[in-house]
Amino acid sequence: MAGSTFGTHFQITTWGESHGAGIGVVIDGCPAGLSLSQEDIQAYLNRRKPGQSRYATPRKEDDAVQILSGTFEGKTTGTPISLVVFNQDQRSRDYSEIAGYYRPGHADYTLDAKYGFRDYRGGGRSSGRETIGRVAAGAVAAKLLEEFGVSVLAYSRSIGPVEIASDPGAALFQDSSPEAVLALRKSIYGNPLYMPDSDAASRAQEYLEECMKNKDSAGGIIECVLTGVWAGVGDPVFEKLDAALAKSIFSIGAVKGFEIGDGFAAAKSRGSENNDSFYHDENGQVKKRTNHSGGILGGISDGSPIVFRAAVKPTPSISSLQQTVNKNGEDIEISIRGRHDPIIVPRAVVVVEAMAALTIADLILSNAGARTEYLKKIYGAGSKHSHS
Amino acid sequence: MAGSTFGTHFQITTWGESHGAGIGVVIDGCPAGLSLSQEDIQAYLNRRKPGQSRYATPRKEDDAVQILSGTFEGKTTGTPISLVVFNQDQRSRDYSEIAGYYRPGHADYTLDAKYGFRDYRGGGRSSGRETIGRVAAGAVAAKLLEEFGVSVLAYSRSIGPVEIASDPGAALFQDSSPEAVLALRKSIYGNPLYMPDSDAASRAQEYLEECMKNKDSAGGIIECVLTGVWAGVGDPVFEKLDAALAKSIFSIGAVKGFEIGDGFAAAKSRGSENNDSFYHDENGQVKKRTNHSGGILGGISDGSPIVFRAAVKPTPSISSLQQTVNKNGEDIEISIRGRHDPIIVPRAVVVVEAMAALTIADLILSNAGARTEYLKKIYGAGSKHSHS
Amino acid sequence: MAGSTFGTHFQITTWGESHGAGIGVVIDGCPAGLSLSQEDIQAYLNRRKPGQSRYATPRKEDDAVQILSGTFEGKTTGTPISLVVFNQDQRSRDYSEIAGYYRPGHADYTLDAKYGFRDYRGGGRSSGRETIGRVAAGAVAAKLLEEFGVSVLAYSRSIGPVEIASDPGAALFQDSSPEAVLALRKSIYGNPLYMPDSDAASRAQEYLEECMKNKDSAGGIIECVLTGVWAGVGDPVFEKLDAALAKSIFSIGAVKGFEIGDGFAAAKSRGSENNDSFYHDENGQVKKRTNHSGGILGGISDGSPIVFRAAVKPTPSISSLQQTVNKNGEDIEISIRGRHDPIIVPRAVVVVEAMAALTIADLILSNAGARTEYLKKIYGAGSKHSHS
Amino acid sequence: MAGSTFGTHFQITTWGESHGAGIGVVIDGCPAGLSLSQEDIQAYLNRRKPGQSRYATPRKEDDAVQILSGTFEGKTTGTPISLVVFNQDQRSRDYSEIAGYYRPGHADYTLDAKYGFRDYRGGGRSSGRETIGRVAAGAVAAKLLEEFGVSVLAYSRSIGPVEIASDPGAALFQDSSPEAVLALRKSIYGNPLYMPDSDAASRAQEYLEECMKNKDSAGGIIECVLTGVWAGVGDPVFEKLDAALAKSIFSIGAVKGFEIGDGFAAAKSRGSENNDSFYHDENGQVKKRTNHSGGILGGISDGSPIVFRAAVKPTPSISSLQQTVNKNGEDIEISIRGRHDPIIVPRAVVVVEAMAALTIADLILSNAGARTEYLKKIYGAGSKHSHS
Repeated sequence: MAGSTFGTHFQITTWGESHGAGIGVVIDGCPAGLSLSQEDIQAYLNRRKPGQSRYATPRKEDDAVQILSGTFEGKTTGTPISLVVFNQDQRSRDYSEIAGYYRPGHADYTLDAKYGFRDYRGGGRSSGRETIGRVAAGAVAAKLLEEFGVSVLAYSRSIGPVEIASDPGAALFQDSSPEAVLALRKSIYGNPLYMPDSDAASRAQEYLEECMKNKDSAGGIIECVLTGVWAGVGDPVFEKLDAALAKSIFSIGAVKGFEIGDGFAAAKSRGSENNDSFYHDENGQVKKRTNHSGGILGGISDGSPIVFRAAVKPTPSISSLQQTVNKNGEDIEISIRGRHDPIIVPRAVVVVEAMAALTIADLILSNAGARTEYLKKIYGAGSKHSHS
Repeated sequence: MAGSTFGTHFQITTWGESHGAGIGVVIDGCPAGLSLSQEDIQAYLNRRKPGQSRYATPRKEDDAVQILSGTFEGKTTGTPISLVVFNQDQRSRDYSEIAGYYRPGHADYTLDAKYGFRDYRGGGRSSGRETIGRVAAGAVAAKLLEEFGVSVLAYSRSIGPVEIASDPGAALFQDSSPEAVLALRKSIYGNPLYMPDSDAASRAQEYLEECMKNKDSAGGIIECVLTGVWAGVGDPVFEKLDAALAKSIFSIGAVKGFEIGDGFAAAKSRGSENNDSFYHDENGQVKKRTNHSGGILGGISDGSPIVFRAAVKPTPSISSLQQTVNKNGEDIEISIRGRHDPIIVPRAVVVVEAMAALTIADLILSNAGARTEYLKKIYGAGSKHSHS
Repeated sequence: MAGSTFGTHFQITTWGESHGAGIGVVIDGCPAGLSLSQEDIQAYLNRRKPGQSRYATPRKEDDAVQILSGTFEGKTTGTPISLVVFNQDQRSRDYSEIAGYYRPGHADYTLDAKYGFRDYRGGGRSSGRETIGRVAAGAVAAKLLEEFGVSVLAYSRSIGPVEIASDPGAALFQDSSPEAVLALRKSIYGNPLYMPDSDAASRAQEYLEECMKNKDSAGGIIECVLTGVWAGVGDPVFEKLDAALAKSIFSIGAVKGFEIGDGFAAAKSRGSENNDSFYHDENGQVKKRTNHSGGILGGISDGSPIVFRAAVKPTPSISSLQQTVNKNGEDIEISIRGRHDPIIVPRAVVVVEAMAALTIADLILSNAGARTEYLKKIYGAGSKHSHS
Repeated sequence: MAGSTFGTHFQITTWGESHGAGIGVVIDGCPAGLSLSQEDIQAYLNRRKPGQSRYATPRKEDDAVQILSGTFEGKTTGTPISLVVFNQDQRSRDYSEIAGYYRPGHADYTLDAKYGFRDYRGGGRSSGRETIGRVAAGAVAAKLLEEFGVSVLAYSRSIGPVEIASDPGAALFQDSSPEAVLALRKSIYGNPLYMPDSDAASRAQEYLEECMKNKDSAGGIIECVLTGVWAGVGDPVFEKLDAALAKSIFSIGAVKGFEIGDGFAAAKSRGSENNDSFYHDENGQVKKRTNHSGGILGGISDGSPIVFRAAVKPTPSISSLQQTVNKNGEDIEISIRGRHDPIIVPRAVVVVEAMAALTIADLILSNAGARTEYLKKIYGAGSKHSHS
């Protein structure tokens, strides 16, 4: 499979460069009959668009999405859904300088090494704008998941050295009611850094101000919790739910680490501490007393909230002096100008949500073939008329 | 794609359960003309087979591999390579107890939730024996990589709280000569825990002894370094080299975290610290002064060693008392008997190597289509006779 | 995807050469809970094994299948089903002659051109024995289809110039009751050529005797009818049901043509003749008055029997003199010795059934994701407990 | 894989409906460094656009293509190439009538059966306009093939009962020089029916006039010849070159039959007639004396021109009276009004070329991994610097 396609059943293909005509995505395999409007998608895109706060690039882009195909009378038809955001901010500035050298921490050098040359305008295909396609498609996946009571919530867990005090994953393990989900979402949206802890957000802003003053940038950790995923989604071998999530999240530029449940802390733990005990709740349902597993056992969802974290590196574009090479074979010093995000984390929060939603939607579709009895529920057994 | 297939170009499909007839793998897409013998593969399997030390299950299994197809006169033919290890230790012990309850930390509950029932003998498809197919196939991938000067080395970086003092990834960044690679390999094989630091290995053994005395188990961190991967392998979007590695490593049971280069530490770093400067070496080659990126920029290899780590949870099978549920709807207490590894890490080291080799081999094959000029090198241009 | 894998959801991977250790297949994606025994599979293999009549190679092969994984207590577990037939007839005859030249009509030359060399023993991977894996897997697919009332029947429609007088496809369009299906099956099995017309079979035998006397070989046409496939299976664009069938049937060696419904005759027809009118039957079901379409409209099944034909070329291995080249650069004359089928058609009948069953099974699984309401039938809507 | 994606290495995803915003395609996996302009693509689209002759719908559509991504400074960058044709002719006519019944020979009924409802405006996704994406992508594939000296030529071999007298496939087997290819192409473009035989074209026009007078439609046979494909492209098992072509051509709406080389005639032939003898030509190259195989042996190209034929059914939209059903459960009579092609064949000729080009391009890319030595030609062996 070529590299711009993600998913097998709920499959997306993204296209577009930072300074080309636009950015788009084709979703193939979305089931028919799902209510879908342009607004559903725009709401997600608005969360990643530039200019939301002083901690994001002030570049002016409306990022207005258009649905070009795949819906009819407000519902998906089962055929490919083509979504596009045309680029507005394509002013023909002079890229000759950037064309001639390799920016440290960027893909400039590796793109040249792979393809022999590159579209150097604004990072081309490796620009953060590539995630527009992911977020637009993720909004559709999230809409589908809603039909099954699945919610996906991501937020900034830490920015630089500042971490939130609360543990939203643990809280949702205790209570994953729609009200609890809504309360967390409100708290996340309560500040421009998408931290569900206003005190931590204030301190993080101070930290960012200092970074900006020093012409430097910051990283952080995004945490994501999925509620409502029933036990049994995923696969025991290569398509483990956690493996699929790891790939989808790691495919977001700037992610350098991924962990689920106790994650790296589990490496120092003991079996007696790390194992989650099972019990029957008052309704006779099998439940776990703890959620060290992060909602996944043996690659398959265990019915508890799925909790994972992604480490995001500091924005590589900084205006302080850096050493690099140019195409004339010279070692040079550069200072990157332009409008750059001092931190990627807040705008990447919705990208993480989108990729998680796409991953789960794909696996839920895949899972429909897991049991012969599932197919009989759809098609009936031995009677060609029962399903029509 | 069904869940037991991995890779697109160098593609493997594994099969088999812990207590069935055997475990196997079919490799489809291995290029023709590669020298390959049963011994090449057996050497890898011997590193994961049980009974190597007192920190591994004493179960008796030779794990002798047979090549059933795909080679002729000592070379691969380009057709599927079928490898099998028949199970020896299939004594018909009584599984009725384990059949009736869900072991904490295992996939028993989730397999039932997905498929409606499960092969409960020894974990079935979710057993660690499933990795035999991966290791056998990984040995073939590693043989292919050797042809291009790529080496893959994994080792135990930490066991429980005990970590090695050396930094093999940094050392290979300075010197990745065949001699340096060989020296590290010797050091890794110098103790049964595969730690390239004999002092740490001694302390780790003490820690494990204590765990065993307490009927408990331990986890740890496996680190892996790939040398010789040239700049340009990988993909800028969904098939990023790091994303592909993340999935392949996370598809190994018990892995709970994955990071590349500085990993989670990058989240607390600043751009000025995290960016790796470029320079020209004495041969005019583009090099990096540091390797915070772990050898990958924008999803594509940057020519530096690729360095990643995986967090492995403690073995869930422990003999101390645990609480769980049985199929009669009762909450019960259990104590797991039998021959279990007190730690998974040392035997998983070669599984990590195997999955890394399979991932890189797949992407190197994929990369052959990246440039029109590459295809001309193979086929010539416009002349149908030049390539025969 | 490497070339020995077929299917996306019900996915098979075959391996093995004519004179290697054996031939096998791994089925990944078969739903859990399907009753399956070795006998189910052996019954299909027996229909393709050599030595059934004087019109097939007298080579001695039992072709006894073993299930190595994927079932437990007589049911599929949802994990990979590994099937193997070990080769018995591997006597080390001298292949040095055949190794040195290219047999006309065979893949000897093209395999060398692709891979640089080949396993020349008995055709290697391009041998007819490769179809063992397909037939074994097809038996499992057919077992699954039975659960939904789908039957697959293939037969020899013509051998050389001799064609059957009956039109089984038209008959099943009028009456596709289980009794009608059974009666046709009996008629097919009534002679070693699998022609559902004993008179035609007699004449075809005379034709074959004459071919054999002249050291020559014959071709023919296989027809296949699928009953019980409900309307709605398939896809409107690239994964059209007829396109998927075309590929699966054309992937059988020696097939040179494929047509569905009226096929090539439709090219000379007019719209008013070729269109099938719709009407409501006595139960209010939508039906067609004719079946020129062969059961597929716009790539999707229309509820009528699916009828297709495959043209099979004459066996290329003939003992009369032929001109070819050897590896010394000489033009030579050869006469192929050994035990060869004078006609491929009768033994290929079950291979066509197998490939058709695999294709439909894959698309039925795929179709489970076509509608949001289908998924709700499986998982419930918004309640994580309703499906357990 | 969802159904709107074709190919594995040179992979395309199409989207769009007849009366939506537009029709498009994303090409992922096209190698970097290929010269490509909008004109290259428009030239292909112009051959399928409506209104070219009185035997095509007079609908007014410019079908002007735009390249939205994937090229830079006139060359492909290796990233996804997004192509779009916006629909002009979307006048909001009244579709309420067509919405209520099922047109015979169309996908109306089967789309409803699959998805539960359909976009009934102009056939939606099952419209002939869907092929715009294929043709646009096929133009890019053809541009790539040109780099390797491969040409793809399709033409109308027969229309209704009228067949061309010449045998272009046989002629190109004797002489496949660029001059011979060009001469055939001129002859094809010499009449609006794309028949390389002006006498046959005249008679075919008379036949079509009569069909139109009778409010009826006609079918025909498209033949396609590929020259310059060297021996060794394809695969011995499921991804046979002929199987891949069969699927790609059968995925074009209205195709009901496909054959390669002697095709269905081979079924009546004998081995001694059907086998193609090998010999060495004056340059010592291996050649065949005849081309009954149609350029493919054992699924792999044999170096001779590849010759195949597709049977196309008559246009199902006819204005004479037809019987069908409506959604009120009534049996009704209809007469389809509007601007319809009396024959699909001439406009489908370029669609066949496009699908053939896409298929071969995909397999040529795939083939780059067939031999270890091929990879060494690209990457060097054991030296990470030799390829940069």
